[in-house]
This record gives sequence, C-alpha cells and structure tokens, in this order.
Amino acid sequence: MGSLDEKNIPQSTSNIIGEFKPLDVEEFRRQAHRMVDFIADYYNNIESYPVLSQVEPGYLRNGQPPTAPNRPEEFETILSDVHKDILPGMTHWLSPNFFAFFPATVSSAAFVGEMLCTCFNSVGFNWLASPAATELEMVVMDWLGNMLKLPKSFMFGGSGGGVIQGTTSEAILCTLIAARDRALGIIGYDNVGKLVVYGSDQTHSTYEKACKLAGIFPCNIRIIPTSHDTNFSLSPVALRGVIESDVAAGLVPLFLCATVGTTSTNAVDPVSRLSDVAGEHNIWVHVDAAYGGSACICPEFRHHLDGIERVDSLSLSPHKWLLTYLDCCCLWVREPGSLVKALSTYPEYLRNKRSDHEAVVDYKDWQLGTSRRFRSLRLWLVLRTYGVANLQTHIRSDVRLAKMFEGLVGSDPRFEIVAPRVFSLVCFRLKGSEILNMKLLECVNSTGRAYMSHTIAGGVYMLRFAVGATLTEDHHVATAWKLIQDSADALLANQ
Amino acid sequence: MGSLDEKNIPQSTSNIIGEFKPLDVEEFRRQAHRMVDFIADYYNNIESYPVLSQVEPGYLRNGQPPTAPNRPEEFETILSDVHKDILPGMTHWLSPNFFAFFPATVSSAAFVGEMLCTCFNSVGFNWLASPAATELEMVVMDWLGNMLKLPKSFMFGGSGGGVIQGTTSEAILCTLIAARDRALGIIGYDNVGKLVVYGSDQTHSTYEKACKLAGIFPCNIRIIPTSHDTNFSLSPVALRGVIESDVAAGLVPLFLCATVGTTSTNAVDPVSRLSDVAGEHNIWVHVDAAYGGSACICPEFRHHLDGIERVDSLSLSPHKWLLTYLDCCCLWVREPGSLVKALSTYPEYLRNKRSDHEAVVDYKDWQLGTSRRFRSLRLWLVLRTYGVANLQTHIRSDVRLAKMFEGLVGSDPRFEIVAPRVFSLVCFRLKGSEILNMKLLECVNSTGRAYMSHTIAGGVYMLRFAVGATLTEDHHVATAWKLIQDSADALLANQ
Repeated sequence: MGSLDEKNIPQSTSNIIGEFKPLDVEEFRRQAHRMVDFIADYYNNIESYPVLSQVEPGYLRNGQPPTAPNRPEEFETILSDVHKDILPGMTHWLSPNFFAFFPATVSSAAFVGEMLCTCFNSVGFNWLASPAATELEMVVMDWLGNMLKLPKSFMFGGSGGGVIQGTTSEAILCTLIAARDRALGIIGYDNVGKLVVYGSDQTHSTYEKACKLAGIFPCNIRIIPTSHDTNFSLSPVALRGVIESDVAAGLVPLFLCATVGTTSTNAVDPVSRLSDVAGEHNIWVHVDAAYGGSACICPEFRHHLDGIERVDSLSLSPHKWLLTYLDCCCLWVREPGSLVKALSTYPEYLRNKRSDHEAVVDYKDWQLGTSRRFRSLRLWLVLRTYGVANLQTHIRSDVRLAKMFEGLVGSDPRFEIVAPRVFSLVCFRLKGSEILNMKLLECVNSTGRAYMSHTIAGGVYMLRFAVGATLTEDHHVATAWKLIQDSADALLANQ
Repeated sequence: MGSLDEKNIPQSTSNIIGEFKPLDVEEFRRQAHRMVDFIADYYNNIESYPVLSQVEPGYLRNGQPPTAPNRPEEFETILSDVHKDILPGMTHWLSPNFFAFFPATVSSAAFVGEMLCTCFNSVGFNWLASPAATELEMVVMDWLGNMLKLPKSFMFGGSGGGVIQGTTSEAILCTLIAARDRALGIIGYDNVGKLVVYGSDQTHSTYEKACKLAGIFPCNIRIIPTSHDTNFSLSPVALRGVIESDVAAGLVPLFLCATVGTTSTNAVDPVSRLSDVAGEHNIWVHVDAAYGGSACICPEFRHHLDGIERVDSLSLSPHKWLLTYLDCCCLWVREPGSLVKALSTYPEYLRNKRSDHEAVVDYKDWQLGTSRRFRSLRLWLVLRTYGVANLQTHIRSDVRLAKMFEGLVGSDPRFEIVAPRVFSLVCFRLKGSEILNMKLLECVNSTGRAYMSHTIAGGVYMLRFAVGATLTEDHHVATAWKLIQDSADALLANQ
C-alpha cells in the first residue's frame, strides 16, 4: 500500500478520507488489545450462552444487507454486532458443557502461537520461503513422534518424517494418493479399476470420501462390518476373507485405513494383527488416530499403537485432544519418497538453489496444495509452555472425568453403557426404544445447558458423552448427568 | 480438563505442580496482551531484518533438543527464543521490501478477525455445528460476489453459491472432482481414461497437480503452449485445435482452467472466447483469478472477468490482494448441486433435523474435508472495517506503485520490460544473458534489502517485481530500484 493523494484517485473520491493504511501499527495494537479483552470476557461468560445454538435457519442471512458497506464502519459497531448477531448463532464448542462429537481442545499457549503464525503470514511452500517454518515443523513432528514412542522409521531423525496437515481428511487423501500412484506405476493407469481399498463400518466417513476423491471406483471400496462382539473393531479374520476374495477376482488390494479410537464408540482396531494380514498383500496401511492417538503419550495407553512400526503412515490431530485449536493434524510417513513423488511440483517460478542442490524439505510436496501457514508454532508453544508431564496430566484428567460419568450412568439402573469406554468417550442409553433416546437427546440439547451427540453402532442407537472440553471440570459433568436424569424422569413420567 | 489431585496421578507426579489449567482466562489475557505488543513491535521493526532469510539448511534443527521438554518453560523464555531462533529463519513476507511471488496482504481488521475465529474454535462441518459460521460465510460470499459484479447465477441470492476454501489448490481440486464425477455418471467409471483436461503452460502448477490427484491420466493433461504474441494468454484457436483432435481420437473433454492474472506474468486468458469453445463440448470451465480477481472490484479492471456468466466456477484468494492473511480462497459455483453430489457425506453421528428436513447449507459437502474453521470472520471484518471504497483505493494504490516502477525501468536503457504490466506485477530484465539476470537477482536478494523472484516465459528468463506488500510505500519501491541499478552497475563493471 502506498499512500495515495486524493487528486490521483480516479473514482469514489468522496468516500476516501485521507490515506488508507490497513496495517497502521498503533491502530493494530489498539484493536488487537481490545480483541484480547473481548475474547477473555467471552471465555469468562461462556457458560451464560446456550451450548447448542437455538436459532432458526436464516436467522442471520435474512437480516443482512445484500452488499458490503461502501464506507468504513467503526470497530466498536462491529464488535457489538458480534454480540448481537454472531454469538446467538454460535454452537459454543469451548463451553465446559459441550460433550458432543469430540472436544476441540484449546489453550492459552496455542492461542498466542496462532497469533504469531498469523503475524508472520509466511507462505511456506518451500524451505527458502521461510526456513524457520519448515525446520520448526520438522522439529515438533519429531518431538511429538518421540512422545508417542514412534519408531525411528517415522522420524526425520531416522528414515521417515512428518508434516502438519489441516485435518485427517487431507492426511488420508495424501497418503491414499501416494499409495495409488505407487501401485499404478506398477500395474499401469489402465488398471485403476482394479484397485481396492479397505476400512470398517466404523472408519470415519471422510475415508470413504477420500477414496472417491482419489478416483477409487465406488464398487471397490470395501466397508467391512463390525459388531459388538469385537467391540466394533475391525476383525483381521474378516479383513483377510475380503482381501482373498478380491485377489481371487483379479483385483489389487491397495490401502487399509485402521482406526485407533473410532468416532462412534472409540473402538481400537488391532493394528498389529491387521498389519499381518495387509503385509501379505503389500497393502499400504494408514492408522487414523485423530482422537485416540493423543492418549498414547501416556505409557498406560501406548499399547493401542502396538504394531505401529509395521504400518506406512499415521495421523493424529492435536486439535482434538492436545490443546492446539483447529486446524492441526500431524501425519507421519515411513517413506516420504512415495508421498513426494505423488505430490511434488516444481514450476520455474519456485525454483531455487536450495531446492535444486540441497536435501531441504519442501513441504508443498507433502500436501495437497501449494501455500501453507506456519502451523507448527501452535504445537511448539503448547509443548514448551506446558511440557510433556502436564499434557499427560491433561489426558488422564479427562479420562478420570469420563470414568466418573461412566460410574454415574452405571449407578442408575434405568441406563446402560453400550460400548466399552476406552478413552474419555462414554456411549450409553436409556433402556428402552430408539425413539425414547432420541427424545432424551433432544430434551437435553434443547435446554442449551449441555450438548451431547448420538450414533448408531451394531444397530443400536446410543448417546455419546465425550468429556474433555478444555474448561470442563468435575461439577460440569455432575450437573450434566443431573440434567440427563431429570430429563429421563420427565420423559418416563409422560410415557 | 478437570482439576486433578496429586494423589490420583499414576506417574510423573514429581513434574506436576498443582492443577493444570491450559485455559486460565486471566493467564490467557496476560499472555495474549503480551503477544499483541510483541507482534506490534515486530511490525515496527520489520525493516531491520533481511527480507529473504540468509540462514543455511539445518540452522534451526541442528540446535534443537531431540525431545520436547518434560516440564513447563516460561513464556518469556519462549518469546526470547522466537527472537533468537525463529526470526533469523523467517523470510519476511510482510516486509515492505518484499516484491517476490505475489504479496500476501494483511490488515488489522483481518488480524482481529482471525483472533475471533481462533477464539470460537468452532468446527463448522454443518449448519447446526455453528449456524453463525455457515450463514456469515454465505453473506460475505454474496457481498464479495456483488463487489465483483458476478451474475446472480453464482450467488446464494440467485441459483448458485460460494464457499471459502483454504487455497486455490483445494478450490480447483473440488470443482475438478465435481466435473469428473458428473462426467463419469454419464460415461461410466470404466471410461475414466478418456477424460481430458486443458490448461496453458502459464496455468499454475497446482492445476496439473490437482488433475493428477483427481486421477486424470497423466497422458490426458493438455498443457497448451502460449507465446509472447498473445501476451502469454491461452489462445481459443489453439484450444479448439487440441480439443477437436482429442474428440477425433475418441476422448472426452472434461475441464478447462482459465486464469485471470497468471503467476508468471499476470497474463489474462480470454474468458469469454474460451467459454465459446468449451461450451461446444460441455467442458466445465473454471476461472482461477487468485490474484487478479481482486482488482476486478474496481470498475476499470472488471472487464477482465467479462464472460464470467458462462463459466462453471470461479476462485479468488483474498489472502493475496484483499488484506485477509492466509488462508482464504473464495470459490463460487454455478451449480452447487454438482459439488455437493461429489463431496457429500452423511454419517449417522452427524445426522440432525436441520440437515434432514431443511434447506440448510452444510459446508462439509462443499470442500475436501469435514472439519472447517470460521474463516469468513476475517473477510467480514475487512469488508466492514474498510468498506468497498477503501479497498478500491488499496488496489489502485498498488497499481500506481507498479506503474511507477515500470516507469523507472523504462527510464534506464540497460533494462527492458518483457511482458505487459496488467495489474501490479512488473516483469523486466537486464538486456543481456540469462546468467547475467540470474546474477542480478542473486545480488539483490543476498543483500536482504529487497526480495524479488524470477520466472521463464516464452523461453525468456525474467525478473518479477510484484508490488503490494501491505507496508510498501513509494520510497520502498524507489529504494529497491536504486538497489537493482547499483547491483547492475557492479555486475556490468565486472564483466
């Protein structure tokens, strides 16, 4: 932005008052300080808002002007509109009474890390575009890998490496495409219709979507049923059966997505035994540990990753359970070469001596797109500000609260636990019909005092109570349980 | 996070001091205020750092411990490490002396918008997950669409709609997959090998990458040569020739990516005439206006989008030239149904009455992944805080500075302009060999006092001087030119 004399402005001069400086530093300082206080006050008052937004569709759109304003508006006017127009339409994911889906956890350290990331606005497509952004990401990926006791084969300190993606969807899509192209290089593009991919009916829906995006024929996406008998985990025996049938039909097994902590019930697929089966057919095995993986920084949960040394890739989202705010999904790969081969580009305008001649990592070749933010700052700030010991405490504390809730459910004979609690998600139901449980969920959520979600597994409709929003304390869990019990009282009295 | 009594901690108790509260609001307030001042001070001092980082590969990694700390570290210690370890490794994209690639522009309004987005940490996969996040995005997409005078067919206020993606790469990949699946629905998956896609040798490299990711056979990616004769824009005649040859060979033309403001030289493909050709073969036309599109909010540049009413989709990245910080890429589509059909998922755990029964937009079905941030806040803050008139001023001011630089180059007979200036990028060279120009670039960039990049178009190696970093003023452009002249003096004297 240069300054612009009024006399040089060809049009709309009447709307311009003096120079336009979108980054006047003292104005920046003033507005940013004001926003810090706005946010801190919001966090202080967060329990005063309904957790689940109670607005109707169109509540905001219908009241907005069709065009952006031509002239500037005051910052305070906009902030007051945030109160008036935005807050009522928020489902407050950071509320201590949010128990739906999985919590998206946060921290002061990650917030200031994100501020710093925004501040630099570095577009780190390659090493040279910001060496610090690339190298810090390599450092924190190895740090987190060490916390998880990953083998050296996943580390830059060994023969592998890691990269921060936005979400699990991107991590899976990247690895799937790497596997696809590796296979097509052998069997030829004309045989793409022979490639078959495997998951269970509990694998996240984003996996099936990624398979379609990558051009796997829909008829070749195997969704293997699970059941209560295996606690909804994928059976290696069932997997082998499906694979052998595909091979007999002349198809080519390509990719398996195993999950450590499924979305519905936190089921843990047996990584080691699944790898045995996959290994027989040179299948790329990806482990999606988006949520459950974080727990594995505690020795008592690490066994859920047993066998990890034999898989090809692993993703884990610190934005779920390691306090980093969205979006931060860590992906480790055992053979970065396969990923880079499938995802690299090198147009003339990005050519540089470092990339030409030295073994630098150019992260654009590890992801779907080109531009990328300095996301590692958030994770770096979290790891250093809190330290590993506090992060272990954090995981254990959430698990303790979930156990507490599990105990409360168990103490009321009208309810039942319907899937084993593995981490800090409790799946339960009111004994009775699906309709009754749907009504209970509706009843609880419509109060705005707590927000739970639901799922169906093994044909059973169940309520999901996911503990671990950053601000949740013992009394929030106890109060939510009381609300659930009271709602059940009312529903059962009216039956 | 619940509080955790020390006696309940199974391991590592010696490292835990009292409760662990990662979002203690007063601590948050203190750290965030501290970070605001840190950042403001960085912006004030940004010219004191070399624009292009001068470190060597390994500069950071080699000095870091192999593992994350077990115990907490002080915030001030970490901030001082940002100074000591991070800043030297930054290529300062916000420096007023940054003239490489395209500027990634910023503003106070977008910064506080990003703070608010982070604050809520809403995971807006569907309407219900945060109605405000979905509806505000719809509002700002229509606002920006109106600023660009897009036809109603791209607006929610008409029959189309828009969505904020991370980057152009994602926008192209989404639309390409929508087009692919629409075609495969007609010709059958077995004929995927017949699909052909079109672009020019000036189309961004991410397009070719997206085509490969989407499973288009590499042999079917047509990269049509351009030349200086058409100012490096794609010739409709050449396009028609390639398409007709493909059709004659039994192939199926699928997708064309036209560019308004190419990366190398800011060439503008003739959207209207290309649409004529594409229309004859039912080809999905996408316009990538990542950089140049922003200029079209000014009436005098709007003609570059002429014909836009006949294309299928358009993407434009406000993070390039509309002050929003990374990442913010706006994608409009004429038939959202095609996009949603290709990208939708609806697992049980996300089912809800709103999505079941009402015409709400669930943005997870408009993008590659599932989770998404409340990105529209940044664009909303920018549009309201500054108003359209100031944003037009901003565009014109950058163009004026580029014209000034163009004039300076023209006044020195040792130099020549090698591609017409369209927006605020100037492509020029020192008359002489490629080696000489490579040396000139190296010489300028190694001073740390300015940073330019290069490209090759039509076989000619040229230097790119992209004006428009947010803090750039007249004197920065003049000083950079002086540096370029002085460097040329030294180089030519030593020849």
